[in-house]
Amino acid sequence: MPLTLSRLCQGIAPSLTLAIDARAKEMKEKGEDVIGFGAGEPDFDTPLHIREAAAYALEHGKTRYTPVGGTLELRRAICDKFKSDNGLTYAPKQIIASNGAKHSLFNAFQAILNPGDEVLIPTPWWVSYPELVRMAGGVPVPVPTTEADGFVATAQMLAPHITPRTKALVLNSPNNPNGSVWSREQLADIAALAIERGFYVISDEIYEKLIYDGQRHVSIASLGKEIKEQTVVINGVSKAYAMTGWRIGYAAGPTAIIDAMMNYQSHATSNPNSVAQYAAIAALQGDQAPLHKMLATLDERRKALAAALNCRLPKGAFYVMLNIGGALGKRHNGHVINGSMDFAAALLDAKKVAAVPGIAFEAEGYMRLSYTLPMEKQQEGVRRIAEFMAELE
Amino acid sequence: MPLTLSRLCQGIAPSLTLAIDARAKEMKEKGEDVIGFGAGEPDFDTPLHIREAAAYALEHGKTRYTPVGGTLELRRAICDKFKSDNGLTYAPKQIIASNGAKHSLFNAFQAILNPGDEVLIPTPWWVSYPELVRMAGGVPVPVPTTEADGFVATAQMLAPHITPRTKALVLNSPNNPNGSVWSREQLADIAALAIERGFYVISDEIYEKLIYDGQRHVSIASLGKEIKEQTVVINGVSKAYAMTGWRIGYAAGPTAIIDAMMNYQSHATSNPNSVAQYAAIAALQGDQAPLHKMLATLDERRKALAAALNCRLPKGAFYVMLNIGGALGKRHNGHVINGSMDFAAALLDAKKVAAVPGIAFEAEGYMRLSYTLPMEKQQEGVRRIAEFMAELE
Repeated sequence: MPLTLSRLCQGIAPSLTLAIDARAKEMKEKGEDVIGFGAGEPDFDTPLHIREAAAYALEHGKTRYTPVGGTLELRRAICDKFKSDNGLTYAPKQIIASNGAKHSLFNAFQAILNPGDEVLIPTPWWVSYPELVRMAGGVPVPVPTTEADGFVATAQMLAPHITPRTKALVLNSPNNPNGSVWSREQLADIAALAIERGFYVISDEIYEKLIYDGQRHVSIASLGKEIKEQTVVINGVSKAYAMTGWRIGYAAGPTAIIDAMMNYQSHATSNPNSVAQYAAIAALQGDQAPLHKMLATLDERRKALAAALNCRLPKGAFYVMLNIGGALGKRHNGHVINGSMDFAAALLDAKKVAAVPGIAFEAEGYMRLSYTLPMEKQQEGVRRIAEFMAELE
Repeated sequence: MPLTLSRLCQGIAPSLTLAIDARAKEMKEKGEDVIGFGAGEPDFDTPLHIREAAAYALEHGKTRYTPVGGTLELRRAICDKFKSDNGLTYAPKQIIASNGAKHSLFNAFQAILNPGDEVLIPTPWWVSYPELVRMAGGVPVPVPTTEADGFVATAQMLAPHITPRTKALVLNSPNNPNGSVWSREQLADIAALAIERGFYVISDEIYEKLIYDGQRHVSIASLGKEIKEQTVVINGVSKAYAMTGWRIGYAAGPTAIIDAMMNYQSHATSNPNSVAQYAAIAALQGDQAPLHKMLATLDERRKALAAALNCRLPKGAFYVMLNIGGALGKRHNGHVINGSMDFAAALLDAKKVAAVPGIAFEAEGYMRLSYTLPMEKQQEGVRRIAEFMAELE
């Protein structure tokens, strides 16, 4: 037969922002003074006590296969975390550790979706959600929210999108890319809707710890026995503990779903890195002071960036959404700015500032900027953006 | 809609040997003196210089996201390995590092298969191959081989199984579970067949370095430009460098396939563990003396185990296939031995010896025993098996 490739795999969208990313990296490698607001990770090193736990594991031969979903020790540490942070009781067999929270999401969709099943996803959305749904044969259904809604999709906004094919809803609070946080009441309404209409909730809580102004994160699974039975909670150590490269994410949920995820993972990848599992235990159970210190720094930058760019103050995560509505249709150096891709390209070329165009998140008319840069760099970036804006005509 | 699960995911066979595995582990945890011939990994620690490279990476903040398919440094080290070991020239963009060789296989099948595409797999086969094919919507087609064939599927044996739906062949030389090694001539015939009939070759070479009696491993991709264009070579550091827990596998192939694999992996899991990538570079480029020492030890055990159990001497990997044909239909302690599952269960219960029943590999009438135990343990295991055999009636 002809040597063709998989249609499904060919149908996966490569990152829209790849070209701009590549250009920014190329400029940096040439030694150009690029200011990068595009990162999806904190600019902090993994705290020392976590790296020491990894070094200890290395010395003590923790270099062999572990159980597919992580060692019992790690899964117990994750159970403890759910209990103390979220008031959620899970048994270790209801936990699976994976190669990052993204991998946990991937496994969850593979476990629950059949071809044609619909998955509600509020927009602006994280780029991988719709692709992860498609990779499992599902159909992503965008549920639009606006800045005026605080980028929060309420039960009332979700309800009209429900059909007999609706299988799940993706919740992501605190949210990437827009920093919104769903309130307990909003989550309770959504839980009631999910129970009434019968769909799963995939609750991506990876930014749980990055939340500001004294708010408390609420997991929808903690709002009652029934909703817990329909929810898969996704979390991981990447964002809170500056451990993005380690690739330890995890999921908790009903035993039947976790069993299916485990079975899938057993053939697809096996266990996540064994040494990183020991590091993750140290992250979850060790000193939380580095997290609080990082959070204080992020908070300072958050306020400064939102104020300087006149953006909505995000409630969580480490991103602001810059409304570029006023720039559209204008020109910079003769280049017409017809959308966020044009804006990103022109800003990078003219001012050596990299940021992610909103179109990547179904948020045309916005740019996503991360506050993961030292304050002086952030200020210099803001100065250049202001200069760029002033030059639009 | 009803809260059902994915049919495809539910259709994945959990390991047939799970029950026996679980029973063996339970006995060990109770402190019983179980001799385990079931392991799929060497009983050696990762060599010190590799662990030191990881510790260095840890100290130097190599804890952030890397490019999805691995750092350029790692991919260059992999290119160097292909050049010097296999005479194969690949560019870094034709390489993708993944969360273990299993993950590389998974990505490869996702990249090339469409629903209903058939994949030829010689049996006895490694348990995950048929499941990996099914997970991508494909149809595994077993191509039976026997001990008399040396467990090698030749072009002549493969040809009758080719249909208009044949999309790929899985080659695994040296082989798990049977230790067979395809010769250069046998591979050349298969390459000619693949070119003539137009199918891909997924060549799993993870046991490349574990080969005995002065033989040299041959990669089918090295047999000409045309076959190289139809082959994805899978390899990794797990088996040769006692790095099973680290999860670094890799694939090399035509750019279009690697691009598709990269795209899929970018959404499904992102990069493999960053620290392990640095360890893998040290494994590939550092001192090979620990590998040679391990190989000498394995070789000694191989000869002793095959001789003691009167098995065919395997040419590679670290498994022997014990023919239990003579035991079938007999009884042990009143339990009838009707197949390899019965044999495994009775042997474990009566003699506390764990091994993998051949039925897991489509090799009913055999048991797979790993020579990954210290010699004294291996000898004690052999003694118990002989005792068990003598007690059959």
